[in-house]
Parts: sequence; structure tokens; C-alpha cells
Amino acid sequence: MGPGPCNPYPEAVEALGRPLLGHLDPEFLAILDETCARLRTVFRTANERTLPVSGTGSAGMEAAFVNTVADGDVVVVGVNGLFGERMCDVAGRCGARVVRVDSPWGAPVDPEPVLDAARRHQAKVIAAVHAETSTGAVSDIAALGAGKGDALLLMDCVTSIAGIPVEVDEWAVDIAYAGTQKCLGVPPGLAPLTIGERAWERRIERPRSWYLDLGMIGDYTGAARKYHHTAPVAMVASLHGGLGAILDEGLTAAHARHEACGRALQAGLEEMGLKLFASEGHRLPELTTVSVPDGVDAAAVRRALLERFSIEIGGGVGQYAATVWRIGCMGHTARPRNVTMLLGALGEILGR
Amino acid sequence: MGPGPCNPYPEAVEALGRPLLGHLDPEFLAILDETCARLRTVFRTANERTLPVSGTGSAGMEAAFVNTVADGDVVVVGVNGLFGERMCDVAGRCGARVVRVDSPWGAPVDPEPVLDAARRHQAKVIAAVHAETSTGAVSDIAALGAGKGDALLLMDCVTSIAGIPVEVDEWAVDIAYAGTQKCLGVPPGLAPLTIGERAWERRIERPRSWYLDLGMIGDYTGAARKYHHTAPVAMVASLHGGLGAILDEGLTAAHARHEACGRALQAGLEEMGLKLFASEGHRLPELTTVSVPDGVDAAAVRRALLERFSIEIGGGVGQYAATVWRIGCMGHTARPRNVTMLLGALGEILGR
Repeated sequence: MGPGPCNPYPEAVEALGRPLLGHLDPEFLAILDETCARLRTVFRTANERTLPVSGTGSAGMEAAFVNTVADGDVVVVGVNGLFGERMCDVAGRCGARVVRVDSPWGAPVDPEPVLDAARRHQAKVIAAVHAETSTGAVSDIAALGAGKGDALLLMDCVTSIAGIPVEVDEWAVDIAYAGTQKCLGVPPGLAPLTIGERAWERRIERPRSWYLDLGMIGDYTGAARKYHHTAPVAMVASLHGGLGAILDEGLTAAHARHEACGRALQAGLEEMGLKLFASEGHRLPELTTVSVPDGVDAAAVRRALLERFSIEIGGGVGQYAATVWRIGCMGHTARPRNVTMLLGALGEILGR
Repeated sequence: MGPGPCNPYPEAVEALGRPLLGHLDPEFLAILDETCARLRTVFRTANERTLPVSGTGSAGMEAAFVNTVADGDVVVVGVNGLFGERMCDVAGRCGARVVRVDSPWGAPVDPEPVLDAARRHQAKVIAAVHAETSTGAVSDIAALGAGKGDALLLMDCVTSIAGIPVEVDEWAVDIAYAGTQKCLGVPPGLAPLTIGERAWERRIERPRSWYLDLGMIGDYTGAARKYHHTAPVAMVASLHGGLGAILDEGLTAAHARHEACGRALQAGLEEMGLKLFASEGHRLPELTTVSVPDGVDAAAVRRALLERFSIEIGGGVGQYAATVWRIGCMGHTARPRNVTMLLGALGEILGR
């Protein structure tokens, strides 16, 4: 119950252990094709170029920037936590002139100043994190899409995908990436990514990164079937299995399950007298942040949860390292029984 | 029996399916530490900075270059196949001035002209592939180490590690990377990498790639334990298991097994009247290349092997796509019974 990885779906685990197929085996290529199709369903996009990048979520972030940004391009980043900050670092290394627009940690990204900055600086890219894993706050990406003008809109949906509604096409998102170890319920190791026509036409033809070159990767995952690098076949099979579990349940039902578990957890924590960290009305159900009560040793409580109850929760990030806990209810872990057990265990440790 | 992935060791498969640990869980960090220690053993190095990069072998290649090469630095690459060519592309994207020194495909890299070019151009980096997966030829990396002078020596040992002797420290290699899906007998998805003090002191402080920044990655895998990205925990556990299997057998015994299987395969193919492709005296035991006999449809034979016998072998690369087969005997697949079965199946299909 940390901020990810969660417990993977049984279907994702089972797929990991199957006899290994070659990355050019027709049987594997069929699994890869179906994985890309399933990713289109969870991203809610018709984008042909929707595929798993062979690295963790941060590789997806780097792939998104390195394929769209060249030296001197302006990137406006809405920052309300660690992953927005990371975007600034990654975009800067790609040569971008980064314009950073801050909102307080725990609050959502405020769309207006971001869109103002994008107009003023004639941004090539507007970037924001949909669900900030460092704070548990959700931001309004649709508002950025509606006002983006000529810019490309780049979305991080690592912690939102399959946990709350994500609408790549409806929100006019041009490029988005996710991670497997949150609400997709698969071990970490892949970064699902989708890129639309508008971003594709304005992409960097020969990006600085060979490994993350979406043109070359797409020549393997697409009809050309041209070898680029050896796909991480076991992880792709696992993603295929996890997506299958989610789509069998139904995406809407999976959202409802995350919502029910997250809200029950948040209510239980407040009943215990604890204070939630993220701004009311902008709290993710799948990732809850809690202020550590005065006088309580945050790390000692986490250790007790792990050692006595085998429950992992996360600490805070940056200046909140010792004053915030992050509790995940993601993927296969998002079950009412886990909420009940966590509340019971935490209550006993805190004596509440 | 393709050029990788091979069949993974049972220990590597078993580890994939274990309950998933968090990337900051003390139990996982102990596995990570032991994995790095085991990697030092197979790389034959005392380098503190020895770790699994969170991507496939090609991510290891990119990590090696992006951390050592900046705009205008000269990189001399010995090219005798596809992966040497890939090095040129990757180094070029990192901003290097690339000096390419070619040897024929199927032959080893000739050390003298490479060292001459390095002296003439005052190279910062000399790079070569130890075992060319595209041709099955092995090159003399020790000769490059002995003559490297002030340059850094960068070695690709993706297909050699754990299959034939690799001696990072003895050969004076400054930075080397491997892949998990060849003789390490683990599914693809990680790139073991080692970097020595000499390369570390001359590294790029803020490389163009955030994801592959070895300084930041080392702060997570090393004593600082600072979060960088979410480690692909299942794949790390699998690598830990595969390395355990190899070290239980003994590295020398694993080499001997690869040697015995590969030579038996090569002898059997020649007895069948087939011609081996790689130059005599420079043939890898773990990857055998065979010239397709005149009048034989290379792809149809591969299809028949797969469909009738569930045996995968690889096609050739580039100009040799239709005229060479590549047959792997790697990792858990390197067993005499597999050699016998492949020879029987191929003999029946070819009518020899």
C-alpha cells in the first residue's frame, strides 16, 4: 500500500512465469499487438502509436520530451510536486528553455497561469502531471487541453491511468505516458506511451536518444516489424495479463473500485483524527496523503507496519519526507479488505 | 535457440513470480545489493559502481555513451557488425565526433587500426563489441586495453558475459555493459553495467539523459539510497536468481558448458555439410552463424523449425538477412540435448 508498486493482478504474475517467447516470435507479436490495443482502451485514444516503452515510467517521461523537444524549444511545465519538477529537469536536459509555473504542493496545477505563460512564451509544449504521486493531488488536464492553442499538450498519467478517468483524445492530449506499477497492477518496468498525429508531425526526426526514438520503436511495434531492441518480452506479457484483468472487470468498474476504496480509506483516517494532506476536492482515491501527527516518528510507524503487519506505506517527498505518509490503494491492492486491515493496523500502532 | 532471449534458468523464472517487494523495501534492497555483488563476479571487476540499468542491453549501450561523451568528444568505434554500427549511431546522438574503423562482418575487430585511429584523433573513448551478436565473431578486447593510452575503453559484452571469459579489470576496460537475455539466462529487460574510477572521474556531470544518469542511479543502488526511479523489482529479482544459478554452477563450469555445446553444434553442422559464417578461430561457442545453402529458403526453414519442433533460430542481419542463420546455445538453453535435437530437426528439414 505504498505509492507503487502495488500488488500485481494474478493474471500479470501468471504471465511472467510462462515459457519465454522470442521478441520476433509470431506468438509474441500477437501478444504485443493486443497489448497496444488494450493500452488504447485504457488511454481512451485512437492513436495508432500507442505502445509500451522498455523502461519504467520515468523512461516514458524522457521519451515524451526527447521526441518532441529540441534545443531552444520552450516548454511550460505546471509544477505541483516532485514529478513536475522532474519534468523540468528532463526537458532541460533535452535542450528546452523551461518555463516553470508553480502551484503549492498538495494543490492542483492552476491552469490559467500555465496557459498564460504558454501564450506569452509561444511554447512548443505544455506539460503537466495528471496525478501527482508525491502529493496525492489531481489536476485538470482537460482545461489545459481546451486552452493549449498551438502548443502540444504532454501529460504524465503514471498514477492516474486505470485508477481514475483518463481521456487522452477528449482532453486533446498530444502525448502521454504512464507506468505499469500503479493502477495497472503490473510490476514496474514498462512505460505505456501514446502519441497523436499532431505531435507526430512535429516530432524530432533524430532524437538525442537512440533507445527512446519513437520512430524506431514504432517501426518494431507497428506493421514494419523492424528489429530495434530486444523487447522485454516477459514484462510485456505481464502487462498484457494485467490489462486483461482490468478490461474483464471493465474500466468503469475498476475506477469505481478505486474510488470506493480510496474514499473509505480517507474517511477512516479522518475518523481516526488524522489530517489529509492534499487539498479537499482534489484528492486522488488511489493515493492518499496524510499529515503525520505532531510527536509521531513517521519512519518508525512505517517500519512497524512493515515488520508487524507486512504492510508497506510510503513516506513523504522532499520537504515533506518526515511529515507526510503516502498510502496507495492501487490495482489489485485496491480492495476493501486491505483498507480495513491498514486502518486497523495503523490505529493500533498510533493508539487511536 | 535464437540469438537471445534464451530459455531462462528456472531460478530466474521462479523469482519473477514471487510476491512483489517495494523498491525501497529493506528486503528488496538486500537483493539489489547481492545482485550488484554477483554482477561484479561475472564482470570480473572490483568496480564499486556495478549495477543493473533499468532497460534492455541497448539502454546499457546508451548509458555507457551518454555518461562519458559530450559534444565534440572523439569516439573511435571498431565496427564488425550491427552492434558496432549501433554504437556509432548512439555515440553520434550524444554529440560525439565518431571515427568508425571497419573490419569485415564475420571477422573480429582488428585492434591495430582502431588503436592507430585513437592515437591520431586523440580519442576520449575507444569502443568495441566483444561478441558480435549479428555475426557470431569474438574480438580481442585485451589488445585494445593494452594499447588504449589515455582513452577510455568501452566494451559491449551483451552476448559474451557468462558464456565465455570476460575480464573487465584484467583487460583494463573502463566501462562495460551487458544484457540479461543471453548467457545470463534471464528474460530481457535489464542491462548490467560497470564503470571504473578512471571513467567515473571523466564522466559527464549532467548527462543529456536523466533516466540513464549513472550518478543519480548510483545514488539509489549505492549507500545513499536516494530514490531516482522505481526499480523494475521483479526483473531485478529474476536477475538475482539467474546469477545465483550461474554462480552455484561456477562461472568456469558455465563457460565450459557453453564451450562444449557450441563446439558440438558447430561440428554437427559441418558434418551435415553446412558452412559456418564467422571466421575460423574467432567463433563464439554461444552463438553460431551458418551460411544458408544455395537454393534453400532461409525463412521457410526457420518457420518449419518453429512450427514443427518449437525450436526458434534467428535469421541473419542486414545484407545477410536471407543468407545466414544464427543459432544460440546460451544460458539454460546451452545443454547437449538441445544441440542434439536441433541437429536432428534441421537435418530432417534439409534432408541431410
